[in-house]
Amino acid sequence: MIVDIINKKRLGKELSFKELNFFFNGYLDGKIKDYQMSSLLMAICIMGMTDEEIYALTKIFVDSGDILDLSFLPGNKVDKHSTGGVGDKTTLAVAPIVAALDIPIIKMSGRGLGFTGGTIDKLESIPGYNTSLTDQQIIHQAKDIGIVLTGQTATLVPMDKEIYALRDVTGTVSSVPLIAVSTMSKKIASGANKIVMDIKVGGGALLHTRKDAHKLSELMKKIGKFYNREVETVISDMNVPLGHNIGNSLEVLEAIDLLKGKIKTGNFYSLCIELASEIISMAKGVSKWDGADMAREAILDGSAYKKFEELVKAQGGDLSKIEISKKTKQIKAKKSGILEKIDAYKLAEISVGLGAGRVSKEDKINPKVGIVLNKEVGSMIKKGSVLCTVYYENVKDFDPSLVLDAFSIG
Amino acid sequence: MIVDIINKKRLGKELSFKELNFFFNGYLDGKIKDYQMSSLLMAICIMGMTDEEIYALTKIFVDSGDILDLSFLPGNKVDKHSTGGVGDKTTLAVAPIVAALDIPIIKMSGRGLGFTGGTIDKLESIPGYNTSLTDQQIIHQAKDIGIVLTGQTATLVPMDKEIYALRDVTGTVSSVPLIAVSTMSKKIASGANKIVMDIKVGGGALLHTRKDAHKLSELMKKIGKFYNREVETVISDMNVPLGHNIGNSLEVLEAIDLLKGKIKTGNFYSLCIELASEIISMAKGVSKWDGADMAREAILDGSAYKKFEELVKAQGGDLSKIEISKKTKQIKAKKSGILEKIDAYKLAEISVGLGAGRVSKEDKINPKVGIVLNKEVGSMIKKGSVLCTVYYENVKDFDPSLVLDAFSIG
Repeated sequence: MIVDIINKKRLGKELSFKELNFFFNGYLDGKIKDYQMSSLLMAICIMGMTDEEIYALTKIFVDSGDILDLSFLPGNKVDKHSTGGVGDKTTLAVAPIVAALDIPIIKMSGRGLGFTGGTIDKLESIPGYNTSLTDQQIIHQAKDIGIVLTGQTATLVPMDKEIYALRDVTGTVSSVPLIAVSTMSKKIASGANKIVMDIKVGGGALLHTRKDAHKLSELMKKIGKFYNREVETVISDMNVPLGHNIGNSLEVLEAIDLLKGKIKTGNFYSLCIELASEIISMAKGVSKWDGADMAREAILDGSAYKKFEELVKAQGGDLSKIEISKKTKQIKAKKSGILEKIDAYKLAEISVGLGAGRVSKEDKINPKVGIVLNKEVGSMIKKGSVLCTVYYENVKDFDPSLVLDAFSIG
Repeated sequence: MIVDIINKKRLGKELSFKELNFFFNGYLDGKIKDYQMSSLLMAICIMGMTDEEIYALTKIFVDSGDILDLSFLPGNKVDKHSTGGVGDKTTLAVAPIVAALDIPIIKMSGRGLGFTGGTIDKLESIPGYNTSLTDQQIIHQAKDIGIVLTGQTATLVPMDKEIYALRDVTGTVSSVPLIAVSTMSKKIASGANKIVMDIKVGGGALLHTRKDAHKLSELMKKIGKFYNREVETVISDMNVPLGHNIGNSLEVLEAIDLLKGKIKTGNFYSLCIELASEIISMAKGVSKWDGADMAREAILDGSAYKKFEELVKAQGGDLSKIEISKKTKQIKAKKSGILEKIDAYKLAEISVGLGAGRVSKEDKINPKVGIVLNKEVGSMIKKGSVLCTVYYENVKDFDPSLVLDAFSIG
């Protein structure tokens, strides 16, 4: 029976709800082994899944845990997700912006693994910030200030936790149907009825082609429809890092700068406004143009930053205690020319080496380290000018020549 | 590195010798986990392997153990292999035939698993027969009587033992490149320079299409050429069981009947003559027609059966003690007509249920049980006539109506 199901998918045939349920719940029960699940996952990666299979598997994932009931909050409840990129701190800015406009946002985030950072790691660089709220604490805080940014609770899609950990070490991460199931099941279980998905595409993202990004977008909308959730997607570039800062404390500081109105251009700013406008438009029934105006206004009038301060205070954090490393190294251009490319993936690997990310789940994050870009793609560079600044703990954690390699000057 | 290699194959790219060696030997060393190997194996199953990858992997397999040195025997040393089928006892007949013609044959065989039987299980139904000869015993017996049929030694391609056990439970058995590597590495390590491969195709075989069988044939010849071994292949049908008897003791008795000249027609007889003629032709440089004549002659003059007796005696077996179950049940036709089909796969499943085969590796085989076909495909059947006879131990081990289902009368 177990091997028959694997063989069926290997040959590209459709699995029934019953077969998927037997296999995935059997895995959770320990009856189906890791090596059998990874074999099926690889077959799914290569042969794909039909829509029916995807709906079935999403249901199996959702049913493996509890659904957070947000019905005590009046009106629309929104959620936001990014498929993960380098320097992606948009949640830290977008959530306070929309909450400042009285749109409740309750978001459970994950930790980073490999080259993608995790919102929870970023939040934990704020000393004291509690990312392990209980369901009761979440409900209380949502009622109180309309914004919660916390870690995933133990009962949030436990199936995904097990499967994701296995996918991560078996080369089965880059499957559009599996990404759709994993993400949508968590968003459905998180209780919001309006969801914005930020799908990253490029060298510093899970998905490398626009075609895959569009496929994922379509799938997520279909799953949303099936579950009566409105899903909007934004497909955004991830060849170049988002914003200037990579690394946990550094990214929180950059988000604060945006909320304080100090950043008004660049890819990080534009994406925050775009995501916020999508959410505002969905929640309030206004146009995206109006949504964007409202988002900009919430920054300018100080209400977005105030909401961020409320959030941090409610969860026990102290913004005055954020630390960045005092040891820095400037990386300087070896020639003059136009800065044609900044390789997000290479910089992500370097920042993992510095201690800003994890290679395996047990690794501890150092919030103080990272990289700050001093130049943007398209700038004229003079030989000797500073391209970026590395914030490090130990000088042997990085190779300056490899950092330089991430910058293409033509 | 581990995940990079899996991802490369998932995307259909070619792996280098270095990458394959790192992965497969890392698995043997325990550095690469079962769930990572099964993921790679599934990617190989679906995306295939290039010839270069296949040569590299064969080398990695062969180098994982010792090569049996048969250079002490003058002239050509032959070996024979079947990809496995239902009722396939050809080795028991073909090996004595060629050995009777002074062609040394030293064959290490495996045990059956799933619906395919294993030559070693069949030989062990001869009480006293020792299937665990050491290298020294093999060499001694080869010098003495020119024929050895024994189990695989511990040093024969240990890599294959590990990988095959994993493939068996992860739906990754039916891969032409993996079958070629697994089989050819064992044949190369067994020391013969002339090899005949019996490739089974049909419902009762691993391969279900002639196209796959031709691909496997071509691959095996290429690998043989690369390793300076002459490989001939015979593609034979496995929709219908081979011969009349299925089950271990029953199959030994049928092989004896053939060697004694009592069987002169049918698919089992033709295949034995064909395989023997291929071997004789390769080893002696005669035509296949002459080879077939020599094979028939070795049966008629009694030398083949005499060689079989010598073999069994040398390995400690006692032919007079072979037992078959005394409990039998005749399965009778429910209608008249032409016997259009006998389903090898269904009968194999029933014989496993009777105890003639294994579901998991720990299962014990009962040599006395099995099925004897009383009619051949194409025969006119009268309602009530006996289609087959089931030799069983416990009446609840089989369902007579399922046995009847294996026979299609039209």
